Amino acid sequence: MAEKVRIADIHKYEGQEVTIRGWLYNMRSSGKLRFLLVRDGSETIQCVVFKKDVSEATFADTDQLTQESSIVLTGVVSADERSPLGYEIQVKTLQIVQLADEYPISKKEHGVDFLMDHRHLWLRSSKQHAILRIRHEIIRAAQEYFNKEDFILVDSPVFTPNAAEGTTTLFETDYFGSKAYLTQSGQLYAEAGAMAFGKVYCYGPTFRAEKSKTRRHLTEFWMIEPEAAFFDLDDDMQLAEEFVSHIVQSVLKNRQPELQTLERDTSKLECIKPPFPKIHYEEAVDILKKNHIEFRHGDDFGGTDETVISEQFDQPVIVHHYPAAIKAFYMKRDPQEPQYALAMDMLAPEGYGEIIGGSQREDDYETLLQRIREHNLPEDAFAWYLDLRKYGSVPHSGFGLGIERTVAWIAGIQHIRETIPFPRTLQRLNP
Amino acid sequence: MAEKVRIADIHKYEGQEVTIRGWLYNMRSSGKLRFLLVRDGSETIQCVVFKKDVSEATFADTDQLTQESSIVLTGVVSADERSPLGYEIQVKTLQIVQLADEYPISKKEHGVDFLMDHRHLWLRSSKQHAILRIRHEIIRAAQEYFNKEDFILVDSPVFTPNAAEGTTTLFETDYFGSKAYLTQSGQLYAEAGAMAFGKVYCYGPTFRAEKSKTRRHLTEFWMIEPEAAFFDLDDDMQLAEEFVSHIVQSVLKNRQPELQTLERDTSKLECIKPPFPKIHYEEAVDILKKNHIEFRHGDDFGGTDETVISEQFDQPVIVHHYPAAIKAFYMKRDPQEPQYALAMDMLAPEGYGEIIGGSQREDDYETLLQRIREHNLPEDAFAWYLDLRKYGSVPHSGFGLGIERTVAWIAGIQHIRETIPFPRTLQRLNP
Repeated sequence: MAEKVRIADIHKYEGQEVTIRGWLYNMRSSGKLRFLLVRDGSETIQCVVFKKDVSEATFADTDQLTQESSIVLTGVVSADERSPLGYEIQVKTLQIVQLADEYPISKKEHGVDFLMDHRHLWLRSSKQHAILRIRHEIIRAAQEYFNKEDFILVDSPVFTPNAAEGTTTLFETDYFGSKAYLTQSGQLYAEAGAMAFGKVYCYGPTFRAEKSKTRRHLTEFWMIEPEAAFFDLDDDMQLAEEFVSHIVQSVLKNRQPELQTLERDTSKLECIKPPFPKIHYEEAVDILKKNHIEFRHGDDFGGTDETVISEQFDQPVIVHHYPAAIKAFYMKRDPQEPQYALAMDMLAPEGYGEIIGGSQREDDYETLLQRIREHNLPEDAFAWYLDLRKYGSVPHSGFGLGIERTVAWIAGIQHIRETIPFPRTLQRLNP
Repeated sequence: MAEKVRIADIHKYEGQEVTIRGWLYNMRSSGKLRFLLVRDGSETIQCVVFKKDVSEATFADTDQLTQESSIVLTGVVSADERSPLGYEIQVKTLQIVQLADEYPISKKEHGVDFLMDHRHLWLRSSKQHAILRIRHEIIRAAQEYFNKEDFILVDSPVFTPNAAEGTTTLFETDYFGSKAYLTQSGQLYAEAGAMAFGKVYCYGPTFRAEKSKTRRHLTEFWMIEPEAAFFDLDDDMQLAEEFVSHIVQSVLKNRQPELQTLERDTSKLECIKPPFPKIHYEEAVDILKKNHIEFRHGDDFGGTDETVISEQFDQPVIVHHYPAAIKAFYMKRDPQEPQYALAMDMLAPEGYGEIIGGSQREDDYETLLQRIREHNLPEDAFAWYLDLRKYGSVPHSGFGLGIERTVAWIAGIQHIRETIPFPRTLQRLNP
């Protein structure tokens, strides 16, 4: 029996007989020839059925084949310079595993709702396939970076007992008679981890019940969040730029065919290397002014603002020193200019907007307690968090990178819903 | 200024002056000497303060130091054969960052509830530190295995629209006016992924609202789940044994000091290499009989049953061909013996019980539809899942490995609550 091989490995088998197991992606007929385009998840290859090479039954079978029918075929691998893969297969035998019903996704244009309703099948298309393989590489490279830099993975819980910043954007569940909320960020727990392990990260899904319908919002999205002790805002920004560069360079190295499928302009990615430009909030405001954007000083940047700011740079730009008034209670303020928080956001180029948010954390017990009171947060729920400032408090910082926004940017995708296998949005919980 | 170094890297700096930043773990005094045991998250090192080597103020400062106070010290690295690390530091300067309040966790025995209430601090203890570093390595090795074997990461959603197997063990949340349930397994979605990518895995937290208070149960636990197309039960069992062996061998290679801290008998781990013993359900029942365990034929195995079965083997044992009646609707039945499901569980040795559950999936549309009806499941909610049997169905299999149970076994921990940074149980949602 011929060896069962994956199409991605086919170059190792030139001149040999192999067995391929996969799905029919497309077929052309021409007299006594049938050209089957077969995908097996690893790659796609042209398989040539020549009437005189196969049994009559087999040749008749090929004419029955429908798109996405599952098949097992055996044949000889031959070099073929015209094919993108460089090889094709001269078929000897073909077995139909299951003859597919008429496939709902055709070459014609489908509406987004139709495609999203068929997300479980749409994943098979070459574009979605490419996006999700890039997603895989982004996540792999992100984990690799922190692992090799000796950050310890300290998973944060999904169930949290208190509503840190109001309940309006929190998903709530009954927890054996109490209320539990789904986490929006693992940061507070990562801070406890940093005091135990020095450098940690957490990675997992996070949840926001936001009623936003923008192309940048999901209710369920993945975030990777490093946190380090004895680490200030400058350290944090440097970590962020090295981390993001590592991810981009890994995708360029390991996912070229996928970037080509998506027709991504890779020259825009090749230049992503540290250092990134770093600008003060006030400099960012000046950019908006120069570009005649209406903006109220002291506000946070909206989507359009982010686009205008990031378009000034070829690299991701880090904006730091946001007004303390618009930032979270746990952010440390600049001792020299207490109206600013030691916060930073990284905005991706090409108008993709914020991919990272981070800060140095308030490490003084009394100051943090005061902030918690100012924000009317439940003091007792934060007792454990305050403890971190009682028992060996140190300067520490961290950030969170949103996986889906990073995929959108690197893959060059306009809408975030295509950057995750099964997106969850305000209007979508299916399939 | 002396170079800032991590204690784990101290061997590179013998004879040099370095700066260490960390926390006081312990201190001994002896006349003009103070022996500070300092941890920085990467390692622990003894730092010797000799009165004549430091300023008067610094020496006075050392006497103020409390456990877990954060400090920055500079000194010269010298070899010291008596220390576990092989090095110590002769201190020149010492700066107190924050003087810790009296640390609540002392050398004396604390109750589990007390320790769990202080989980954010308990993580700093050498035992918890070791367990979570082993957890990190298990997760890293698990991801590494699937990545290098070309499985594509296809994340499953946490929010699911339907209650696949009854709502009693499901956490529910309001989803903008509809109901959503938190996932118990990513498998069904991974099956869609396998049809698109051939080989996939998902990894993330899963949720069970079980009212179990056993040492094996958490409400929130992490699971890694591979799924592959053109893959039968034998392939699945082979993948499982190679995967688990890779994890165990990686921990042995990369976490020896942590295993020593936990006094783990590593000889019991060294023998974990494929192939693992594989027994039919009926053979497992025979083992129970021979050991005079009361057991009703046809039932699933309970905790004690699993312990007795697994104790017969030095390796993890795979039990396959469970009665179909006690297994999930999506499992394929053995065509030769339809009373058995093509299911398998892997039981860890030393009484640790099930760490893997898996099966070949039903791939025939009509049969699956019938099972869904037999189980009174909502047909429309499974329409997309049934689609996978309409459009190129293939034999496929997969399994799920529970991270926390695997950590418990490899680290040799009795209770699963110590295998995750912030455990969530029936009675615990804090901190």
